[in-house]
Order: sequence, then C-alpha cells, then structure tokens
Amino acid sequence: MTLQQAIEKMDELEKAFYAINHASSILYVDGDTVAPKNSWKGRGKALGYLSELTYRLLVNPETGEVLNTVLQGKNETDEVTFRRAEMLKKEYDELHVLPMEEYVAFQELTNEASSVWHDAKEKSDWAMFAPLLEKIVASRRRFAALKAPGKPAYDVLLDLFEEGASMEMLDPFFRTLREELSPVIREVASREKPVPAFMKASWPVDRQRIFSQKIMELEGIDPLNCTLGETEHPFTDGTNKWDVRITTHYHEEDPFSSLYSVIHEGGHALYELDVRDDLQFTCLSDGVTMGIHESQSRFYENIIGRSRAFCTPLLKILREVFPDQVRGVTEEELYSAINLSKPSLIRTEADELTYSLHVMIRYELEKALIAGDLAVKDIPGEWNRLYREILSVEVPDDRRGCLQDSHWSGGAIGYFPSYALGSAYGVQMLHEMEKTVDVWSAVARGDLSPVTTWLTEKIHQYGSLRKPQDLLPAAMGGPLDAKVYTAYLKKKFGELYSL
Amino acid sequence: MTLQQAIEKMDELEKAFYAINHASSILYVDGDTVAPKNSWKGRGKALGYLSELTYRLLVNPETGEVLNTVLQGKNETDEVTFRRAEMLKKEYDELHVLPMEEYVAFQELTNEASSVWHDAKEKSDWAMFAPLLEKIVASRRRFAALKAPGKPAYDVLLDLFEEGASMEMLDPFFRTLREELSPVIREVASREKPVPAFMKASWPVDRQRIFSQKIMELEGIDPLNCTLGETEHPFTDGTNKWDVRITTHYHEEDPFSSLYSVIHEGGHALYELDVRDDLQFTCLSDGVTMGIHESQSRFYENIIGRSRAFCTPLLKILREVFPDQVRGVTEEELYSAINLSKPSLIRTEADELTYSLHVMIRYELEKALIAGDLAVKDIPGEWNRLYREILSVEVPDDRRGCLQDSHWSGGAIGYFPSYALGSAYGVQMLHEMEKTVDVWSAVARGDLSPVTTWLTEKIHQYGSLRKPQDLLPAAMGGPLDAKVYTAYLKKKFGELYSL
Repeated sequence: MTLQQAIEKMDELEKAFYAINHASSILYVDGDTVAPKNSWKGRGKALGYLSELTYRLLVNPETGEVLNTVLQGKNETDEVTFRRAEMLKKEYDELHVLPMEEYVAFQELTNEASSVWHDAKEKSDWAMFAPLLEKIVASRRRFAALKAPGKPAYDVLLDLFEEGASMEMLDPFFRTLREELSPVIREVASREKPVPAFMKASWPVDRQRIFSQKIMELEGIDPLNCTLGETEHPFTDGTNKWDVRITTHYHEEDPFSSLYSVIHEGGHALYELDVRDDLQFTCLSDGVTMGIHESQSRFYENIIGRSRAFCTPLLKILREVFPDQVRGVTEEELYSAINLSKPSLIRTEADELTYSLHVMIRYELEKALIAGDLAVKDIPGEWNRLYREILSVEVPDDRRGCLQDSHWSGGAIGYFPSYALGSAYGVQMLHEMEKTVDVWSAVARGDLSPVTTWLTEKIHQYGSLRKPQDLLPAAMGGPLDAKVYTAYLKKKFGELYSL
Repeated sequence: MTLQQAIEKMDELEKAFYAINHASSILYVDGDTVAPKNSWKGRGKALGYLSELTYRLLVNPETGEVLNTVLQGKNETDEVTFRRAEMLKKEYDELHVLPMEEYVAFQELTNEASSVWHDAKEKSDWAMFAPLLEKIVASRRRFAALKAPGKPAYDVLLDLFEEGASMEMLDPFFRTLREELSPVIREVASREKPVPAFMKASWPVDRQRIFSQKIMELEGIDPLNCTLGETEHPFTDGTNKWDVRITTHYHEEDPFSSLYSVIHEGGHALYELDVRDDLQFTCLSDGVTMGIHESQSRFYENIIGRSRAFCTPLLKILREVFPDQVRGVTEEELYSAINLSKPSLIRTEADELTYSLHVMIRYELEKALIAGDLAVKDIPGEWNRLYREILSVEVPDDRRGCLQDSHWSGGAIGYFPSYALGSAYGVQMLHEMEKTVDVWSAVARGDLSPVTTWLTEKIHQYGSLRKPQDLLPAAMGGPLDAKVYTAYLKKKFGELYSL
C-alpha cells in the first residue's frame, strides 16, 4: 500500500466515522433531552449497530495497515494527516483489545444504564442502579486488564480521559488540594454568611429561558451554531463547529444553578466552536482531553463567571430579565451571593472553594472500586462516610449522594479527576493570560472576546491537533502546580470572608 | 442458499436497516426542531453516508438472492417473514434503478433543500428555492423513467406514497370533489359568519403548551412513547411503537391552529403506536401507505376533532387552560367557530370543506411539473392562478402561496393526493365504525378509546403487514367512493350554514 493510497483509505474511513459519530451523538442528545422515556430500547438497537459498525471499520487488518502506513510516512505527510492517523491509531489500540461482541454489549449496557439511572436517581434507589453499575465496573476492569496487563487498571481508565494522568500524579495533587483547602473551608464555614433575601425570590422558568439566551450571547456563543436544551444533567455535545448542543436544568427557586450550568457548558461549547475549519469532520475536531475541556468550561464558569468584574454585566442582565427579583441589589451583594461557600451535597452546584473536594471523593471511590477494594453495593455507605470525613456534611439520601452524577451510568469511570485538573489548569492559564490581556476591564464592560480570543489562540483552534504536553505548558506558562490553584482560591475566599 | 439461511441473512439486514432508519429519522426530527440552523452541513454528511450504507446493503446481488429465496419459499414461511421480504423487495426494486451516486446525491440535495426552503419561505423568496426544486424535479423524473420506462412519470411517483394510485384514478376523484363541493363552497361563502369575539383573544404560548399535553392525553397518546416538539411545519416521525415524535407550531393569536396540528399528528402517531409488537424493528412497523396514514390523522383531526360531540370535552379543557378566553362560550358556539368555512390561503389551516381543493391544486401543479408542461420558475404564477380559479382567493405572496408546504423540499412529489384520499377513506371508515360503535356518545364523554380500538383492530395493528387492497375494503365497507366523502361534507356544512 502506498502512502497516497493509505491516505485515501483513511479519508474514506474518516467520512464513515464522522457520520457514525454524528448520528450517535445526536441520538444521545435527543435521548437525554426530548425523546420519550420508552425510546431507550429502539435507541439502544440503533446505537448498538452503529458501534458494531465502528468496530468493524476500525478493527481489521486493512485499517491497521492503512494507519501504520500513514504513521510511517511522517516525513512525507502534513501535520494534520499524521495526527489524524495517530489519533485513529489510539482508538484502534483501544478497541482492538476487546472482542466485538463485548464492545457492542458495553454500548448497549451503558444505554440501558443511563435510562435506569434517571429512574433510580428520581426514586433515590441505589439497588435499582447497582446491578448495571456492577456490570459496567466488571467490563471496565476487564478492558483495562486487556489493554495494559501490567498497569493498574484505574490508570488505564484515567488515561482515556486525560492522557498521561495516573494515580501517581493525582494522589499528591488531591493531597495538596485537601491539605491546603480544608483549613480555609473550615474557617469560611465558621463565618457562614446568611443567604441574602433576594436569592429566596421565585424565578419563573420561562424567564430563566430568556436569561439563558442573554447569557449565551454575553459569552459570545452564536445561536446559529449552538442551541440550548433541557435535561436532568447538563452536558455539551458537539459534532462539528457548526453544530454544538449544550443543556441546562431549571429550578424555579434558584436561577444561579442554571446560570452556571449554561456558562460552564458554554465554555465547553466555545472550545468546539473555535476549532480550525480544516480540522472539521475529522477526528481532530474535538477537544484533546477531558481535563483541557473542563479547563475551558470551568474557566468561564468560575474564573470569569464568578469574578467581581463579571458582576457588572451579570447584574445588568438580571435587571433586564428579573427586575423585581434583583431590585436594589448591588454588584457587591451579587458578588458575595454567587460566591457563598459552604460544604454541600451536590458537586455541580458546589462553590468554587469546596468543589475539588467533591471530585476527590469520587476519585477515592473510583480507585477503590476499580482496584476491587470496594463493592458496588457498598458505595452508598462509603460515599456518605467520605462526605462526612472530607466535607463534614451528612448525606440524607442517595439521590443527593451517590446517584447524583450521570457519569458512571454512561461508563465514564476515571472522568471525574478531569474537573479538578481542569480547574487547576485554568487558574494557571489566567495568570498567563493576564500578562498580555486586560482581562478584568474587558469582562466588566461585558466583552468576553479578548478572553476567548486568547483561549482560541492557545487552546481552542487546535482541537486535538496538538498533544496536551505541547499545548498545556504554553498556555499555563509552565507545568501543573496544584499550589497555584489553591493560592488563587485562598486569596479569593480570604478576601470574600475577610480571613 | 437455503430458505433458512436466507431468512437469517434477512434478519441481519433488517437489524442494519432499523438502525440506519432510526438514526436518520432522529437526525431529521432533531434538524427540524431543536438543532442549530447551521447544523445542516454536518447532518447532510451524516445522512449522505447513512443512505449510501442503505444502498450498499440493499442493492447487491446477494441481497437480491436473499429476498428472492424468501419470496420463493412462500409456502414454507410465515406471513410476517414473507411480507417483510415483499416490502424489502419493493425497496430493492426502487433503489436498484438508480446508480448509488445519484441516490446519495438526492438525499444530500433534499437535506440542503429543506434548509433553504425554511429560509426562502421566511423571506417569501421563490427564486432562492427554485434552483433546488429544479434539481429535485429533474431527479424525480429521471427516477420515474428508469423505474418504469413505459409508465407516465407522475404515476410512478404517486405509487410511492399510495400503492396503486394513478392519474387515471385521481383525475375523476378530484373532478367529483370539485363538482360536488364548489357550489357548496360558494353558497357557504355567501353566508359568511363573523369570527366570534372570543377567537380574537390572546392565547399565551406557554398555556398552549399545557393545552397540547391535555389534548394528547384526551386523544389517548401515552407520553412515555410519544413526545411533542415545535417546528415550522408539523409532522410525525416514528421509529418504533415506543418512540414516536409529533410536532406543532404555536401562534399566540390562534390556539386552534396548533390544536388541530396536535390532533392531526396525534392521529398519525396512534397508527404507529398501535402496531403489533411482533412487527417492531422490522420494515413492517410503519403505516402501509401515506393515504392510509392520512386517513388516520384526518380522522382524528376532522371527523372526531371537529365534530359536535368533541366540543363537549374540548370546551372542558379550554375552560381549564384558558378560563378567561372562553368565558361564556357555549359548545354550540365553539362548534360553529371551529367549523367556520371560507376559501383561504393555507392548506394546513383550511376548513374541512375547502381542504381537498387545496390538495387538488397541488395535484394539478405536480402533474404539469412532472409531465414537463410547467417550469419551476412558473409555479408561483400558476399556483396563484389556480387559487383564484378554484378557490377564488388572491395569493398575496409566495410565503402564503407556493412556499407554504415543506413536501417538495424533502423530495416528496406525489404525496399531496394522499391527504384527499385519506380524508375520503376516513369518512367511509366512520360509516363502517358507526355500525358497531356508539361513536358520538363516547366522544362526547371524552373517551376516544372505542374509536381507537376499532381503528387499531381494522388498520393500526397491521402496520405494513396487510396490503392496502386487503385492508381498505374491510375498514371502509367497500371500495373508495368520492361521493360518500362529498355527501358527508355537504350534510355537515349544510347544517352548519343552514343551506
């Protein structure tokens, strides 16, 4: 096979993969937003066939030869073509280790588990979800053992979401977070501020929908390329830069929950919306790792969205959409209100200071689960024990405990650390950005474009073209340093709570 | 190849077709409801690949042999298996005549045309849409010539939507409708009733959404299996009996437009929701022809939904959802209001009496278009001329004229007659149903289940298992007779307008 022939074959394959991934993505988005509840059965059949097709197209000797031929032709080919082959080879290596039946069964299993999880969460019924999670855990452990027999299974899973991540790296990372933040969290808790009266207003959902549109506009998201849906657990799913979906969840008693979901998912969306045109419809059009993806979402959500400067445009929009609810509220009061810190139950609604300890709890549980040291049936007890130990909160039921997140039901074990890593990456990016961009005066006047332009230049445009080890140091001005992240949090909350 | 081997191969094929059709359906539904506007490009790539896949799986010598083997084994196989082979063979014969590139290009063309049509309609700009329609017409004519060289091209297209339909049958059908109904329409127009004051109220869209849910419940649609979306042009799309989607379009100044869309699409939905379990995930789970499909939708919309008896439960729901708007309105006033008849511009909002003449106009235009007697650029003039001649209305712009319907943009030329045929079938079914079911007292007490049970028994349960020529006479108590339909309309509107 000549290099030219191999590239043509790879182009054909990518056309098929694009179509299959596009269809699967939309089936997931639809299934989680507007599809009828009983639709999971037919969707499972469709997704099962599509994943079988992916497997057949990718895992066969000819594809192996195609990819190797392109990889061997590195010096005679361009950067994009070579990297496409590299990323496809990574997927090839991942799928290759599993027999097709097992691969397809896993897709069908997670489709069913997602549906059951919704019900189980609603009913706060762990026993309903546990048998499916047991199968998922067993399947993930088996995958890890086949993929890298000598390596700890959890490291294999971590690497799927954050290339290069391992327990060896994450154990000290989380230890630092816990050691540095726990005293601050305790101190802040002892100075608990009352929830201001205006936060207790009623915020009609139809107004919140309008609010979301204005927030997306402020964030610089073009509605022609990205729409907002409603779902239990907010997410982002993009198929190309002209078709990205984000979702949120409305609570009548609290507009800030949805607000920060929209800004967070909007950050993910901006990453996908700003990838270079020539990477579209290839395997390089996505973000390169989940940690870097979360660095973008949490950058907009917290570093920008919960900053003092952001309160200026935010209050302006609140006054337009909710004039009665925010009458008389000042920017300072708003800043304090959106940064109330208190150990709580729900990760996605946790304040910035306590957030990463929610992640740490999941990290510890996943480690034990995959090592075989924790049985699925014992997760609720262990979850509640860790929340008591690390965050000093009592978990009243599994709905607000170990059933709150959708990740495990979708098979994503090893994903959670990405949130904490991303948060830490983001703070280092901010410091680097501040060297050349007047971040806070732009944000205060409601113009996020200098921020997005900088992030596009450093991160977004590349999609998966550049490897994390090439992207990150340039954007962060150096290697990951947990203490930069904790210092940022200590300074911010030290000021907010006059510590 | 043994019969058993052929059946196994056919099962494998059906698994693939189910998945591909499921994915394509959801991509269409999503594209028409919540997808971002610019998403058409990526969706086109995905749909193009999926249709290519269908073509490759269906049009090849092995599949031909598989289907013929099953068909030849008629005496040794069951009814369902044989009919599946028969329906797949029909599709095989359809696709077989076109080279793959042309088949795929047509899918991509209609995907693009659907997107352009939305814009063109909004801007009332025929010139924007015309080049795409020209390509669609050329492609359909070429298909018809290849499919059945000796047959008039339009007959070939009609048969795609209503098996056995032809100009020879439809010309006298529409002639009868026109001759019988035109004098009544003129007479009714001369006795024009004023629009009652309550119809001019404002009907907030968020209340209309609640109204829709109650109407779906009244119609007997299980929300676990069928959800309602919002779109420019209402439609129904089902992938199996546990996953059907209907859509509507809200107008703040008029809740009846959406009401009758919901009931109409709900009728389509009930057909798909009530198909036998053992036909699910096969090519038999759909309605058998579009005429029969429309007979169900228009049955619920008009025969039931615009009946005197239906005004009892309808007014009850209106009073719950819109107490201010319908204060003091009686059932008689409501019955008169929902049956105001007047020649108008928009087919989907036409009253029952004038409706089929809207269809006739499209039938005449399509005949001329496919025969080559009418150029695409001349459609607006000819459309407006026919509206003037047949319905005595002046078309003010193409948005309310020849750009109002989505069908042509999706490649569906030859579909429209199904609406009129379906309406006529429905009236004959009603008379047959009335022999054993106390239709009107059930409807008056808000219980549509006896109606749906009868239709399920006669029509719905079979999906595509029974051929139209076997299904229809049993449900209609005899062959199609246009005069039964016109007699029903003459009686109903004669009473309403005291002719």
